[in-house]
Amino acid sequence: MYRTHTCGELRVNQVNETVTLAGWVQTVRKFGAITFVDLRDRYGITQLLFGETLNAALDANPLGREFVLQITGKVQERSSKNANISTGDIEINVTAFTVLNKSAVPPFTIQDDTDGGDDLRMKYRFLDLRRNAVKKNLELRYSVNRSARNYLHENNFMDIETPFLIKSTPEGARDFVVPSRMNPGQFYALPQSPQTFKQLLMVSGYDRYYQIVKCFRDEDLRADRQPEFTQIDCEMAFVEQEDILNMFEGLVKRIFKDVKNIDYLEKVERMSWEDAMWNFGNDKPDIRFGMKLANLKSVFLKGGNIEATGELINGVGFGVFDNAETVLAIAVAGCSEYTRKQTDELTDWVKRPQIGMQGLVYIKCNTDGTYKSSVDKFYTEDKLKAIADSAGAKAGDLVLILAGREERTRKATSELRLEMGKRLGMRKDDEFKLLWVMDFPLFEYAEDDNRWVARHHPFTSPKPDHIEVMINNNPVIENAEKYLEHPYSNIKANAYDMVLNGNEIGGGSIRIFQRALQEKMFAALGMSEEEALHKFGFLLGAFEYGAPPHGGIAFGFDRLCSILGGSESIRDFIAFPKNNSGRDVMIDAPSEIDAKQFDELQIKLNLK
Amino acid sequence: MYRTHTCGELRVNQVNETVTLAGWVQTVRKFGAITFVDLRDRYGITQLLFGETLNAALDANPLGREFVLQITGKVQERSSKNANISTGDIEINVTAFTVLNKSAVPPFTIQDDTDGGDDLRMKYRFLDLRRNAVKKNLELRYSVNRSARNYLHENNFMDIETPFLIKSTPEGARDFVVPSRMNPGQFYALPQSPQTFKQLLMVSGYDRYYQIVKCFRDEDLRADRQPEFTQIDCEMAFVEQEDILNMFEGLVKRIFKDVKNIDYLEKVERMSWEDAMWNFGNDKPDIRFGMKLANLKSVFLKGGNIEATGELINGVGFGVFDNAETVLAIAVAGCSEYTRKQTDELTDWVKRPQIGMQGLVYIKCNTDGTYKSSVDKFYTEDKLKAIADSAGAKAGDLVLILAGREERTRKATSELRLEMGKRLGMRKDDEFKLLWVMDFPLFEYAEDDNRWVARHHPFTSPKPDHIEVMINNNPVIENAEKYLEHPYSNIKANAYDMVLNGNEIGGGSIRIFQRALQEKMFAALGMSEEEALHKFGFLLGAFEYGAPPHGGIAFGFDRLCSILGGSESIRDFIAFPKNNSGRDVMIDAPSEIDAKQFDELQIKLNLK
Repeated sequence: MYRTHTCGELRVNQVNETVTLAGWVQTVRKFGAITFVDLRDRYGITQLLFGETLNAALDANPLGREFVLQITGKVQERSSKNANISTGDIEINVTAFTVLNKSAVPPFTIQDDTDGGDDLRMKYRFLDLRRNAVKKNLELRYSVNRSARNYLHENNFMDIETPFLIKSTPEGARDFVVPSRMNPGQFYALPQSPQTFKQLLMVSGYDRYYQIVKCFRDEDLRADRQPEFTQIDCEMAFVEQEDILNMFEGLVKRIFKDVKNIDYLEKVERMSWEDAMWNFGNDKPDIRFGMKLANLKSVFLKGGNIEATGELINGVGFGVFDNAETVLAIAVAGCSEYTRKQTDELTDWVKRPQIGMQGLVYIKCNTDGTYKSSVDKFYTEDKLKAIADSAGAKAGDLVLILAGREERTRKATSELRLEMGKRLGMRKDDEFKLLWVMDFPLFEYAEDDNRWVARHHPFTSPKPDHIEVMINNNPVIENAEKYLEHPYSNIKANAYDMVLNGNEIGGGSIRIFQRALQEKMFAALGMSEEEALHKFGFLLGAFEYGAPPHGGIAFGFDRLCSILGGSESIRDFIAFPKNNSGRDVMIDAPSEIDAKQFDELQIKLNLK
Repeated sequence: MYRTHTCGELRVNQVNETVTLAGWVQTVRKFGAITFVDLRDRYGITQLLFGETLNAALDANPLGREFVLQITGKVQERSSKNANISTGDIEINVTAFTVLNKSAVPPFTIQDDTDGGDDLRMKYRFLDLRRNAVKKNLELRYSVNRSARNYLHENNFMDIETPFLIKSTPEGARDFVVPSRMNPGQFYALPQSPQTFKQLLMVSGYDRYYQIVKCFRDEDLRADRQPEFTQIDCEMAFVEQEDILNMFEGLVKRIFKDVKNIDYLEKVERMSWEDAMWNFGNDKPDIRFGMKLANLKSVFLKGGNIEATGELINGVGFGVFDNAETVLAIAVAGCSEYTRKQTDELTDWVKRPQIGMQGLVYIKCNTDGTYKSSVDKFYTEDKLKAIADSAGAKAGDLVLILAGREERTRKATSELRLEMGKRLGMRKDDEFKLLWVMDFPLFEYAEDDNRWVARHHPFTSPKPDHIEVMINNNPVIENAEKYLEHPYSNIKANAYDMVLNGNEIGGGSIRIFQRALQEKMFAALGMSEEEALHKFGFLLGAFEYGAPPHGGIAFGFDRLCSILGGSESIRDFIAFPKNNSGRDVMIDAPSEIDAKQFDELQIKLNLK
C-alpha cells in the first residue's frame, strides 16, 4: 500500500501519529520558507505542511497541480482550523515525500465551478471525473444501485443475466446490429430491453427476476438520450397489477430512504391516463403543485368521455376562441397584479418556436372582486368571472388561456403550467412526488400506415374487461377518418408508468401469457403469421408450455439518478457518456475498422 | 397475488389454515376417487389432494404435466410423510382450483435426470430452466454475485458502469463490431474487457472500482467458451501486488464461505510461473495433489535456469530417450502392482490423438525393493532405482515416463498427471485448493511475425527490477533463432493468476502508469507511434495528467460458478447460453436483417 490512511480520514485524535498519504495536489500555497499543499483523493482533502528543510527540496522540484504525491509525516493539530472539511482540524507535518507521477497543466481546473466547457470536459473526461461535482453523482448512482439490489434481494428477486447478442426484431425503435463472423450474412442485435427473456424466465418459474442492465437503442439522439442506457429491469409471476404497484413503490421509497434519507410515508398517488391528459395536459404530470388545466371548449380527448360545450366562450364574436379546436385555461395563484410587461413577456414565451402558440389571453381576478382581461371588449365581467371560476381561479389569481389545435394547445398549456410552477417556486428540487399513471390506451393509431401500433409494447395485456373486445373484433381500420370509432381505440392496457416530479422514471405492464391472445396482438399490429413466428416464435412456443400470469416494470436508471441528484442531465450521472452524435469524444469512437475485419465479417461499406 | 404461500413454505404448524397456491403440475397420481397432484414452483413442491367431488371435475378436464394451476384448500397433516422434501409433512386438501394455463406435453421430462438431449434442451431452454438441476446452478450464480458485491462494497469498492459501445482496438482476440448509423462508415466495438476504462477511473481517482460485467470476444468457440461472458472486474489504485493478492484472496474466501459454507482459513499458496511449468507442466496446476514432474533430461524451460543433464538416462543405447528433446517422469503412488493390461491401457491413453505421444515407459518400484520396467533391457536395476528416486518414487509406486519434443511432452505429462490424479481419487469435487501463480514472462515470442506479444496484455507492468531492461534495450529481434538470448525474453511481469483446482479463475497485473513506459511497451509489441496514438491516445494522454500506481484483476464469473457448482461446463451456469457456433438455438440468433437496416447502416454483404 502506498498509504496508511486516506485523505479524508484523519482527525484530531490521531495527532502525533506518523502516517503515509497518497493523492493528488489540489493546491500549493507558499509562505516564505514553508509550503502548504492540499492533497486530494476520493475520500477528501488533507492539508500538508512542508517545513523549511523540505521547502528547499520543493523549490528545486516544484509541485504542480494534479501531481501524484506520496508523503509521510506526523499528524498535528492546526492552528487555524477549517470547519468546511472533515479533516479541517489537522494537518500533516511532512517528513518525506515522493512524486509518484507528474502532471501536465490540466486543460481546466479540477474544481466544482470549473472553467472547462462541455466539449473540453468530455474530451478529458478522466479529469472531469476528478471533480467533486461529478464524483458525488457517480457515488449517488452507486448508492441507488446498491439500495435497489438490497431491496430486491430481500424481496426474493434473483439477478439473472440475459444475453446481449440476441435477434433483431425491430418493432418500435431501431436495433444496433452486430455482424456474425461465424454465421456469415447473419447479424445479432443488441437488446433494447431484456423483455422477451425476462418473460421466458417467468415461464421457467423464476418468479421474481431483476437485472440492472445496459440496453441499446439506435435512435437519433435528443439532448438527453444515450444510445446505451441502463435499466433496473424487473418481472414477477403470479401477480396482478396491484401487487406490482405495491412492490415497486416500495422499491422507490427504499431508494429515497437509503439515498436521500427521505421517509416517503404516504401511499403513492394514482391517476388514470385520461385524467392525467385532461387535468395536466400530459401523461407524466408534475404533481408537486396543482394548477390543473380547465377545458373551455372542445372535447379534450378524442374518444374521451368528458365533454365541454364551449358555451362559456363561444358566440361573443371572439374569433380566436370561436375557431379554435381547443381552448385551455390555468389559474396561476396570486399573480393577478402582473404588469403589462409581465403579461407581454408571457405572451412572448408562448410564442417561442418551442411552444408555438399564436398568443395568450389572460384574465386578472383582482382582489377587489373585479375582473380585467386582455379580451375585455368581447367578454362581460360576468362572463370573465364564469370563465375564471371554471378554471378554479380565486381572487388574486391570474387566468392564462391558450387556444388552437388540440394537440399543440394541450402541450403548450402543459408547458406553460410547468413554467409558471417553476417561476413561482412550486417545483422544489428537494421535494419528491411520486405518481402512478395507469390505464393507458393499449393501441395508438399510426396515421402513416393506417394501422394500430402498441403504445407500450406488443406484450402488454389489455385490461381483463377488454380482452373480449380485442379478440372479437377485426383490427383492420376500414375508414381511416373514423379510426376513433373502431372498438380498438377504446381498449385500455394493464400498463402503468411511475412518474417522479414530472418525469417518467419507470414503466411496465401486465403481460399477455396466452398464445392465442399474443397472436391476436401481433395480428392487430399488422404482423403476418409468418413474420410473428419468425420474430417471436420462441415466445409463442413458450406460451404453449404452461406460462404463468406475469408482469413487470423497468426503471430508467440514468434518469432516476439524475432526478435524485437534482440535475436535468442524465449525462452527468454516466461515467463515460456519448455526445449527441453518439460519439465518445474521449476515445474517439466509433471509428474506422481494418480491411481484415471487413473481410472476416464478409461485409463492406455501401456509403451513399 | 395469485397465491398466499409458495409451494416450498407450508409446514405442519400451518395445519388447518386455508391457503392458495399457484404453480406447475409436476405429477398427477390417481387412486380411484381421489387424485394426488405435486404442485411445483421455484421454492419447492407441495402435495395436493383432490377428494371425491373435485376428482370428478378433474376427470372431465384432466390435468397434464406442466399445467399452471391455482388451488385453494386446507393444510392437513399427511398420513405418509415424505422426509425428502421440506413440505413433506403436509398436503393441501383442495376445495377449489383454476387452470391458469394449459401446457402441451413437454418435449422432455422436467426432472433432474431428464430424458432430453442437449440440443432439445437448448431449443426449449425455457423448459430446461425449470429443472431443479439447472435452477440450483442459477441460484448458485446469484449467490456468488451477491457475495462478491457485498465483499467489495464493504471494502469500499464502487460499481461504476463502463461503456459497451467502444472503439475497436484488435490486440489479441477479435472484436465484435457494431456499425454506426449516425456515423456512416464507422463502427463501435463491444468491449473484450473494460480494461482501459477501469484504468482511466484510477487516473480519475476512483481508487477502488468493480463491475460484474458482460464482455465479448469473437473467437472460434471451443467446447466451453461463449462469445459473451461475464467478468468480476476490479481495479485498485495506490497498491502494490501484495495488496491485490490479499484483497482478492479475501474475496474468493468470502465467496467460499457465503456460497459453500467453507472456511478457507489457510493463506493461499503462491508459486512462480517457472515453478508451475517445471513442477506441474502447466501454468494452472491442480495442487489438490502432488505427483510433481521430474525432468530426466533437457533443460525444461527454454531460457529457464534449471538444468538437467540427462546423465541418468543417456548413453545406454535407448534411442527413444537419447534422441528425445525432453524426458519427464511422474511417480504414481501405490500403483506398482498395475497389471500388464493396466499399463497397456495407460500406453493407449497417452497415444490418443488428444495426447499424441509415441509411447509410455514405466518403472514399477516393487514393495520388496526390486524394480521392474518396460525398458529392463536397457537399464540396470541400479539405474532404474536412480531414475525412480529422482522422480520421488517410493516403494509401491509406479513411475511413468514420457519422452519427445519439449512442449508436447510437457503438456502430455501434465495431462497424464491430472488423469492419474483423477483415477486415484485425488481430485475431489468438494475439496477446493486455491493458488496464486506469479512472475509470468512479460512477453511471448511470436514466431510468425518474429516479434514480441504481450503474454497478459499491453498494460501490464514489468517487475520493477526489469523496467530498466525494457527501457534500455531495442525490442527488435535481430536473430530469430536466438530470440531466447534477447534481454526481453527474461523480463518478468507483475502479473498473477488465481487458480482453483487446476482452473484459472482470475488474472490480473500491476499496470504501467507512466506514459514513456507505456509507449515503450507499444513499441515493443511492434506498434508504430501513429498506431499507438490512434488506438490508445486517450490512455497515453491520461497518463500525462497524474496517473497513480494501480493494478487489478478480473475473475471469470461463469467459470468460477461452474467450479463451485462442481461442473465442467460453464454453459450449465448461464441462463441462455449459445452453442459452439455462437448460435442461440432457442431464439434462432443470429439471423438475417432487413434491407432497410442495411440501407440505414450503409453496409452490404460481401459473402465469399
